[in-house]
Amino acid sequence: MASPELRKDVVTGRWVVFSTARSKRPSDFKSKSPSGSGNSNSQNCPFCVGNEHLCAPQIFRVPPDPSSEWKIRVIENLYPALDRNLRQRDAQGEESPEVLAGFGFHDVVIEGPAHGVRLSDQSPREVRDVLIAFRTRIKELAAVEEIKYVQVFKNHGASAGASLSHPHCQMIALPIVPPNVSTRLDSMKDHFRQTRQCALCEAPSNKLVINESTHFVSFVPFAAIYPFEIWITPRIHSSHFHEIDEDKAADLGSLLKLMLQKISVQLEDPPFNFMIQTTPLRATTSELPYAHWFLQIVPQLSVVGGFELGSGCYINPIFPEDAAELLREVNAS
Amino acid sequence: MASPELRKDVVTGRWVVFSTARSKRPSDFKSKSPSGSGNSNSQNCPFCVGNEHLCAPQIFRVPPDPSSEWKIRVIENLYPALDRNLRQRDAQGEESPEVLAGFGFHDVVIEGPAHGVRLSDQSPREVRDVLIAFRTRIKELAAVEEIKYVQVFKNHGASAGASLSHPHCQMIALPIVPPNVSTRLDSMKDHFRQTRQCALCEAPSNKLVINESTHFVSFVPFAAIYPFEIWITPRIHSSHFHEIDEDKAADLGSLLKLMLQKISVQLEDPPFNFMIQTTPLRATTSELPYAHWFLQIVPQLSVVGGFELGSGCYINPIFPEDAAELLREVNAS
Ligand SMILES: Nc1ncnc2c1ncn2[C@@H]1O[C@H](COP(=O)(O)OP(=O)(O)O[C@H]2O[C@H](CO)[C@@H](O)[C@H](O)[C@H]2O)[C@@H](O)[C@H]1O
Ligand SMILES: Nc1ncnc2c1ncn2[C@@H]1O[C@H](COP(=O)(O)OP(=O)(O)O[C@H]2O[C@H](CO)[C@@H](O)[C@H](O)[C@H]2O)[C@@H](O)[C@H]1O
Repeated sequence: MASPELRKDVVTGRWVVFSTARSKRPSDFKSKSPSGSGNSNSQNCPFCVGNEHLCAPQIFRVPPDPSSEWKIRVIENLYPALDRNLRQRDAQGEESPEVLAGFGFHDVVIEGPAHGVRLSDQSPREVRDVLIAFRTRIKELAAVEEIKYVQVFKNHGASAGASLSHPHCQMIALPIVPPNVSTRLDSMKDHFRQTRQCALCEAPSNKLVINESTHFVSFVPFAAIYPFEIWITPRIHSSHFHEIDEDKAADLGSLLKLMLQKISVQLEDPPFNFMIQTTPLRATTSELPYAHWFLQIVPQLSVVGGFELGSGCYINPIFPEDAAELLREVNAS
Repeated sequence: MASPELRKDVVTGRWVVFSTARSKRPSDFKSKSPSGSGNSNSQNCPFCVGNEHLCAPQIFRVPPDPSSEWKIRVIENLYPALDRNLRQRDAQGEESPEVLAGFGFHDVVIEGPAHGVRLSDQSPREVRDVLIAFRTRIKELAAVEEIKYVQVFKNHGASAGASLSHPHCQMIALPIVPPNVSTRLDSMKDHFRQTRQCALCEAPSNKLVINESTHFVSFVPFAAIYPFEIWITPRIHSSHFHEIDEDKAADLGSLLKLMLQKISVQLEDPPFNFMIQTTPLRATTSELPYAHWFLQIVPQLSVVGGFELGSGCYINPIFPEDAAELLREVNAS
């Protein structure tokens, strides 16, 4: 058994404890449920075709022509974390530097009309279209001066936070740069200063690579916080996800689909999240050389405990090179 | 319904989104289970009296006299995150600044011999003895030069990460200062520079206070990350938990017991974590004036999703003053 090790990721700036001994411990409790189907009844599902009237207002749809059936809908979240109409009232807000009015946007991207068709079941071209819908909406949000960052994310399965099972993603447009993003930028800046290289332009070690495509590479990060965490990065430097073109989106769509299939096969259909880790909308030109976007996939295999909540340090029971090997080998398609 | 708001905590330095709208959303999935009893069969429980032979080595017990029955046992964790014997091999470790040998200590504190007796069921004096056991062990660990921080934490209930149900806490002694601790110190330092005041010496606003005791106050922090999060702070400035004396430990024991009873009554026996947030063992004298320890209690009421994982920003559906009011009013005893 390998000795435990602490590793620091040059991108996230975070120390992670790797300990294979942890995976052997017994449990009194039932293990985490697979992603599960949740409500399979599409009659009451607001995201199903035919139930559009149950939803908050639509922002746009794909294809735009209302006489054809929709394939993707971008809508307002009916229970939003931030309020898109609050701006006017800003001035009434408290004056303290520790309080901001909750202005922002919280949208839902419905990935398809069918309740039971997951993103990984869709064709690469359909996945591309979802990615392009993200791009379109980010560009619209970027036009709002107060918005500093757009977090795109997916929750799949109850243990990954999902409350609705119909395949969807969400986007939250924030009036602040969130803490993980500023910490990441600081860490990538340090690396850039020391090496004159963007930390994500350097190719990951072969031991960590899972698959490669024309424009992207998928790998387990050197200091993965979560077991079987996967990053997909563009090979050529790019700071903002929303710079992606249709060609690259199609290429990314295939690789994303493959990764989702692989974790489903290897880890028995786990709940998971994925997040687009991009650069603040209003990043300065001096920040761009070391800011490189990526897509992060996190299978939810364990519950976080008091150690992680308290310290912000994570314990990962599988070394990244071992996780990468398992994911490289799995046959998916 | 109150408008959403963003608040930054001067202690943690973290922005949190408060949105009551979020609490109204429907769900396809069953809601989170209560803390549950897990395995109620104490026959195979390694932490039960009579099963000491199933455990990793004991470090000490309370009372020390082996002819009496034990009340508390501090033992090694059999599946440790860090290895207490690794030090000698350090030199062999990699030379990169991004890798450290996994040297450290991972201990378990068994809070009592009975499987079904929780910390909140114990008498204030018994809770005090558990707190004093933490102090004793931290002092021992502080004597090891390489150890920079000791994280004390409790997981109660499967959704709070617990794998064993017998009442226990854990302690992980780390060769690094963990990220939450350094971020907190930076934030408290900023506040101190601006105000010449320790952020936790200032009394919390009455609206946020839950209960007070002679030496401690319990309250919901101004920018609570989690719904019904509670902090207990010493009124008089103190940087390190392990400076606590028996008197104060007894007083803290009563208040901690009361808070655990209150969340159990108000929130229907939720899974929860608590963490002691203290100061690095080798903090400099210039850091001590603004470093103030506290005990953080986090009921686990919702699952974290992709937004939080990606951004590090949290969404809390209940305003701290509302949570405090509910906790102030609940009748527990
Ligand atoms: N008729 C309707 N029209 C439009 N929108 C509708 C709707 N009915 C429901 N919605 C919205 O649809 C979304 C579904 O989202 P998810 O299933 O991905 O997780 P949710 O946001 O609930 O919470 C998870 O993700 C968030 C963010 O990571 C975490 O804070 C949280 O704890 C976790 O459970 C919800 O946000 C809900 O508000
Ligand atoms: N015979 C024996 N002798 C000694 N020790 C024994 C033992 N049998 C089991 N143990 C140890 O007892 C501990 C029980 O701890 P908890 O139930 O608080 O959660 P655990 O540490 O498993 O994981 C939770 O907490 C950690 C830290 O927060 C998270 O990383 C994790 O995901 C979460 O599930 C385990 O650490 C286990 O290794």
